[in-house]
Amino acid sequence: MAERVVVVGLGLIGGSLAKALTGRAGCTVLGIDQNPAVVEKAVACGAIAREADAADLRDADVLYLCLYPQATIDFVRAHGAEIGRQCVVTDTCGVKSAVCPALQALSAEYGFPFVGGHPMAGKEKNGFDVSEAALFDGASYLLTPCGAPEAAVETLRGLAVRMGFGGVVVTTPEHHDEMIAYTSQVPHILACAYVLSPRCLEHRGYSAGSYRDVSRVARINEQLWTELFLDNGAALSRELGTLAEHLAQLKRAVDQKDAETLRRLLRQGRERKESMGE
Amino acid sequence: MAERVVVVGLGLIGGSLAKALTGRAGCTVLGIDQNPAVVEKAVACGAIAREADAADLRDADVLYLCLYPQATIDFVRAHGAEIGRQCVVTDTCGVKSAVCPALQALSAEYGFPFVGGHPMAGKEKNGFDVSEAALFDGASYLLTPCGAPEAAVETLRGLAVRMGFGGVVVTTPEHHDEMIAYTSQVPHILACAYVLSPRCLEHRGYSAGSYRDVSRVARINEQLWTELFLDNGAALSRELGTLAEHLAQLKRAVDQKDAETLRRLLRQGRERKESMGE
Repeated sequence: MAERVVVVGLGLIGGSLAKALTGRAGCTVLGIDQNPAVVEKAVACGAIAREADAADLRDADVLYLCLYPQATIDFVRAHGAEIGRQCVVTDTCGVKSAVCPALQALSAEYGFPFVGGHPMAGKEKNGFDVSEAALFDGASYLLTPCGAPEAAVETLRGLAVRMGFGGVVVTTPEHHDEMIAYTSQVPHILACAYVLSPRCLEHRGYSAGSYRDVSRVARINEQLWTELFLDNGAALSRELGTLAEHLAQLKRAVDQKDAETLRRLLRQGRERKESMGE
Repeated sequence: MAERVVVVGLGLIGGSLAKALTGRAGCTVLGIDQNPAVVEKAVACGAIAREADAADLRDADVLYLCLYPQATIDFVRAHGAEIGRQCVVTDTCGVKSAVCPALQALSAEYGFPFVGGHPMAGKEKNGFDVSEAALFDGASYLLTPCGAPEAAVETLRGLAVRMGFGGVVVTTPEHHDEMIAYTSQVPHILACAYVLSPRCLEHRGYSAGSYRDVSRVARINEQLWTELFLDNGAALSRELGTLAEHLAQLKRAVDQKDAETLRRLLRQGRERKESMGE
């Protein structure tokens, strides 16, 4: 049972993992953050036992990297030699093809096992202050083992269960990125495109759940998501193209007052949703 | 204080209005529905006191028409002569320009006041069985008086408050339809377009709140919404065009790996959302 864990990057995701690993999984959690005030806060509230140093990277059972994609690679490049060969290294990036090959190469170079990871949870706010152990309750945890030993995958799976994740899905970086382009990236692009309409400014009083739901994730962290979108540009572009095509079909039916086509497309949408048991 | 109310059409909206008017506003509510079994159920559960007949249309203080747009006009055309001149007639259609002029003309012909109405609430299910008095809790109630006497507007406003609506907004049919195209119709079109992606079929395990929120209203009543979309085709088409243009801008930035433009567009989305206090 993994007990010594280091979490690098104590933002929303790293802070929440630290809190869940400490409070729910019973691990001894050490933390690293570029902001000393955040480390202090994390110690003060008990999310981490103390700040981690190079010796802790050598002795850890698991290392959770909770940084932006390029920063994740940069950290392992800078500290790879300090990481113990027993330590399961995993990231939390929302894209996998853009980070896993580099981390796999570093894993081969330094001897530690690497398993790509993506905890499917978030908020419209960032930072340690909004992190919470309950963030992952019932959420899906996506793992891309990329050839790592089964034991490393099982270590992460076990911790995920103890933290309260709803399930673990093991897949390839490529399939992960195709699915995420659809399930997560397109909705974020959509939310931004949607609120850019001039009508948005006067929606108050004229809106209900539909507006709220589509626009919710427009409160985006544009630094992070620009990196995520460009790191997954090909898959994201394909999905945006598919969506644009379906939207154009529906718009054409409206423009041509083609009730039959419109009804058919809407019925297909409803049946698709119902066929998923939703 | 209006006490005798007739509700025509006991589906999700009519059934919920009947329950709220009876249970919360303390009105005597009579009902009409093409399905006798629904009338029976409504009586059995106390949503209405009994079925309404022609004499009740003559004596009522308020008449809520809870039918599809064309059926609303057809009902008043067929029964206009039976409606008392004191009776405030209002509809519940999600579009106003396509129904208000015809109902205004019938109001002038028969002498009853007409005020267009749109209770901004719904569900992904239809029919009396899913209706509930709480449906309108905190919701916005849009009124388009179209020249009706202020007293008629005040009657509906007072009942709305007693039913638990969050607020009443008075506007024109044209402005209503422009706003609704954006706040409600586009999200419904979007939800259907979104779930038509082949990726939708395998989203389970790879999705979280973003997928759920964008796809929610794809469980659409295609008969009703085809009518609503075509009745508001011009405004809806303009909004779909605006959305398609913003989506295309974002897609182009992804395709061209133009981080600066992408970041700027996402920041605009975030700032727009934040500027609305959301």
